[in-house]
Amino acid sequence: MIRVIGIDGDDTLWHNETVFSLTQERFRQLLSVHLPDTARLDQRLHDRERANLRLFGYGIKGFTLSMIETAIEVSEGRVSAAEIQLLIDAGKAMLSHPVELLDGVQATIESLAAGYQLILITKGDLFDQESKIARSGLAELFWRIEILAEKDEASYRRILNSHGVAPAEFLMVGNSPRSDIAPVTALGAAAVLVPYPLTWQHEQLEVGLGEYRMLESITELPDLLQQLRSK
Amino acid sequence: MIRVIGIDGDDTLWHNETVFSLTQERFRQLLSVHLPDTARLDQRLHDRERANLRLFGYGIKGFTLSMIETAIEVSEGRVSAAEIQLLIDAGKAMLSHPVELLDGVQATIESLAAGYQLILITKGDLFDQESKIARSGLAELFWRIEILAEKDEASYRRILNSHGVAPAEFLMVGNSPRSDIAPVTALGAAAVLVPYPLTWQHEQLEVGLGEYRMLESITELPDLLQQLRSK
Repeated sequence: MIRVIGIDGDDTLWHNETVFSLTQERFRQLLSVHLPDTARLDQRLHDRERANLRLFGYGIKGFTLSMIETAIEVSEGRVSAAEIQLLIDAGKAMLSHPVELLDGVQATIESLAAGYQLILITKGDLFDQESKIARSGLAELFWRIEILAEKDEASYRRILNSHGVAPAEFLMVGNSPRSDIAPVTALGAAAVLVPYPLTWQHEQLEVGLGEYRMLESITELPDLLQQLRSK
Repeated sequence: MIRVIGIDGDDTLWHNETVFSLTQERFRQLLSVHLPDTARLDQRLHDRERANLRLFGYGIKGFTLSMIETAIEVSEGRVSAAEIQLLIDAGKAMLSHPVELLDGVQATIESLAAGYQLILITKGDLFDQESKIARSGLAELFWRIEILAEKDEASYRRILNSHGVAPAEFLMVGNSPRSDIAPVTALGAAAVLVPYPLTWQHEQLEVGLGEYRMLESITELPDLLQQLRSK
């Protein structure tokens, strides 16, 4: 019997990837004089991000530093200070970008909060995530808020233990197979995938995802829970 | 009767400010061709950090971005990509810098853990703080670990509430009057200041600090707790 629902933030409650994509588009325009091949430029940025992940973790500030490093690398040191300032400005624009909820999120979360204890479980820069949660207007509807450096099996186990929640009582909903589904089903808890159009193609995982359900929109979640209840 | 002890991380358990100071020294050397007046350069960096605080929060990645912006500003756009890469490298060096415990910390925390429930309460980049906690070798000695975006009265109240700790049962120890003392005494809990030599002069607060005690070293804390107990 589900009692507690974990809900992801970025690209589940509010748009995030679209903001990154817009910035990456600006990055391409800015760097096109140094490296016109867009696909190669994207690959260089992606490689730089991966190489920096161990030190920077996830989040906009690390992404901004990786953009700057990539710009220096692909331009072979010819990128100007003014161009680098534009990259910093792009990072700042991302950090202050308005939080736009996905369609139907507000009503759905209100409805879920009436029947379940909700935990917002999100990943990234602590400061940026707290700021987004505050600006989302949803904070009051959550029983607990957990911001993690990494969403793996150990961190989900720690959250469930610290709040006294058994895996059988827990359902996680999110857009990432790797972060929201695989570690949760591994614990024996329920998981619902709501893919976000822009990221879906990138996350073809090698690891097994366990047993999970998929919805097109989080607005379908209350009905699904109703079905699970009446079984 | 004190039952739970909150302990700050940076400059209370391990050296932090020394690492920032070394980086700032490298920054001065690097920028001296553009702005030889060291005091003005420090002031410009400080002003830039303050202006960025609302977007970046605390932590090394934000500090690195602020160094780059300051370099662009004081050089009036003449700073080279190679110089900017050196600033990024300095930021990375900070992030991978070995965690050096202050003298006597290991034995003191082991001794405290035998008689009290310890909560590590620290501030900054989530990813960087988690990494430092892991590398400190102290994580197992703590009952709970809390990484905050801001150490204010509201965040301390939230921690005490969520762990079922009354202010009268709680004592906080740390090096920052603003973050470790003022918000804690305001809640009616006990606080012990252990100043860190490099930062002490910067934190002359306007706000009242309430009633607190001061020690020269955290190694004196077990004796102080013994005295409080026998009163």
